[in-house]
Amino acid sequence: MEYRIMLIGCGTVGQGLLEILEQKADYLNDRFDFEPRVVAITDKLKGSVICQEGLNLKSVLKLLEEGKALNDYPGVREKITGFIEPLDLIERVEAEIMAELTYTDIKTGEPATSYIKKALRSGKHVVTSNKGPAALHFRELKELARANQRQFRIEGTVMSGTPVFHLVENGLAGNEIKEIKGILNGTTNFILSKMELDNLEYDEALKLAQELGYAEADPSADVEGLDAVAKVVILANALMGGKIRPEEVKRQGISHLRKTNVLEARKAGFRYKLIARVKKEDNRLTASVAPEMIPLSDPLAGVMGTQNALTFDTDLMGQVTIQGAGAGKIETGFSILSDLLAIHHSEKI
Amino acid sequence: MEYRIMLIGCGTVGQGLLEILEQKADYLNDRFDFEPRVVAITDKLKGSVICQEGLNLKSVLKLLEEGKALNDYPGVREKITGFIEPLDLIERVEAEIMAELTYTDIKTGEPATSYIKKALRSGKHVVTSNKGPAALHFRELKELARANQRQFRIEGTVMSGTPVFHLVENGLAGNEIKEIKGILNGTTNFILSKMELDNLEYDEALKLAQELGYAEADPSADVEGLDAVAKVVILANALMGGKIRPEEVKRQGISHLRKTNVLEARKAGFRYKLIARVKKEDNRLTASVAPEMIPLSDPLAGVMGTQNALTFDTDLMGQVTIQGAGAGKIETGFSILSDLLAIHHSEKI
Repeated sequence: MEYRIMLIGCGTVGQGLLEILEQKADYLNDRFDFEPRVVAITDKLKGSVICQEGLNLKSVLKLLEEGKALNDYPGVREKITGFIEPLDLIERVEAEIMAELTYTDIKTGEPATSYIKKALRSGKHVVTSNKGPAALHFRELKELARANQRQFRIEGTVMSGTPVFHLVENGLAGNEIKEIKGILNGTTNFILSKMELDNLEYDEALKLAQELGYAEADPSADVEGLDAVAKVVILANALMGGKIRPEEVKRQGISHLRKTNVLEARKAGFRYKLIARVKKEDNRLTASVAPEMIPLSDPLAGVMGTQNALTFDTDLMGQVTIQGAGAGKIETGFSILSDLLAIHHSEKI
Repeated sequence: MEYRIMLIGCGTVGQGLLEILEQKADYLNDRFDFEPRVVAITDKLKGSVICQEGLNLKSVLKLLEEGKALNDYPGVREKITGFIEPLDLIERVEAEIMAELTYTDIKTGEPATSYIKKALRSGKHVVTSNKGPAALHFRELKELARANQRQFRIEGTVMSGTPVFHLVENGLAGNEIKEIKGILNGTTNFILSKMELDNLEYDEALKLAQELGYAEADPSADVEGLDAVAKVVILANALMGGKIRPEEVKRQGISHLRKTNVLEARKAGFRYKLIARVKKEDNRLTASVAPEMIPLSDPLAGVMGTQNALTFDTDLMGQVTIQGAGAGKIETGFSILSDLLAIHHSEKI
């Protein structure tokens, strides 16, 4: 089956997705009867292109690699000058699915939320790795999707393509989830791992993370726990029926931790981890992000470096833990593919 | 939607399933529009009952609890004497789904395989936790299911209800799996954990496992790796397109390991685990079950006690690990429910 897909935003995630779709075209067709056609891309920095017959992804990737504008894509009927506003593109281009891959604004969720609403209202499925709309407006967007008989899917918002929402939706369906806890920020986990294993002080470990590209020049979104807060809010609202807002999450970062704290914990049989947690008690959800001393016997204690992991505490299956990549170009690109395949799976039957 | 379900075998797994269906009836209906009606049960030890309107599960569970025969179920139209042969029951009773929950015979896969074939041929979906048919005849049964436009589902054959097949089928779809490795036998993992953490000799740890009901009087199926072999064959054939037979798996148990081996490994930064492994190289699968010294940084090293875990090595997502219960009445009962819900999910759309 063919699907026409438009990409709003073509940064790391978008390029990861395009690489996968290009390399796996035959495999996806043979194995799943899935034929994605990318018909339009618009990106503030990289320009815009429309090709209703479907873009040649090799050519698109070559342009991106060479730093050229998408507008330079050869041989399209309609030559575009500059950047097409996403809201215009959604109106102008026929497609079954929009992949919303712009930057996260965790204060407002905009402009992504507006793009998503417009796409759903115009009858498009939406898949996104953007944490803003999912953290701030999950219920509203899910409801809007339902009203339009379309899907709103967010696998890439937590743990990149490691199956979190798929796992709960399918394999764990039938369980009630009592608690979700885990390690959702690779940067802080890398820093804590380095402090313990390589005996580094916090500042040294942070500097190393910055040198390796795991932490940004302003690392506060990671080390103060804001990134993990957005993710735990998404889990609470999407998987546990919550209506939590980011400011309701009790938050503490890791920047106050010193090497001695980490090493003393380790001597006592514990390991410091930045734990994101959402818990249901008396039908009320409480959420927190804070460093916790985890016993070494806990599955989360073994999660080192930039890896992420989540433990679901359920009524029937007890604790189920999934561990995998928390970020990465191909890994997050795959999260979008996995949501595309889920849509295909529903449409096909 | 209503589904009529027949149970072949009503031991631990069957009773676990019935308890879940009884306790969660409203939840399953409200949440998933899923209304299972158990219309027949037959079990060599517990007798047989047929009730086309759907059995009252409370009454069934009460009979089982009191050690009475299923034939004593009150108020059915058709009073049954003794045990109905499953092959007869499949012919006689109208149902959409058969749950095959009899004992595993890993040499022949019988009589379960015959039951499954008959059910598929007569247009019933089949869900099973029985390792025999899945290990010996997966391809044939899958093909037979396809030919009859029915499903053959096996979530309970590996790691009880911890989502293994669901995970690969949904969340990881689109990945090619290069290797699957893991801890698939809780008994041996318990023994190895006790040897290391409580400083027990092999014989002492085995005895403890027997006292706690984790190991049988004749523990050879567990400690010689036969149980793990059956599971790794299922993974190879169901998830990696293999045609492996149990006798082709390189196998070594744990009974030769001594406390000194385990403790010396630990001192060197490793941990002994009975690792089941299937690997694709040059498009050929090789499988093994053997104790391996795993570095402590490996996610599998932290899996202690009776827990199970699997690591999937994939082309797009790298390594993804899932950890959870490997056995248990409710946990394996849930595996059947999760397959029932998957069937419902496909039918519903």
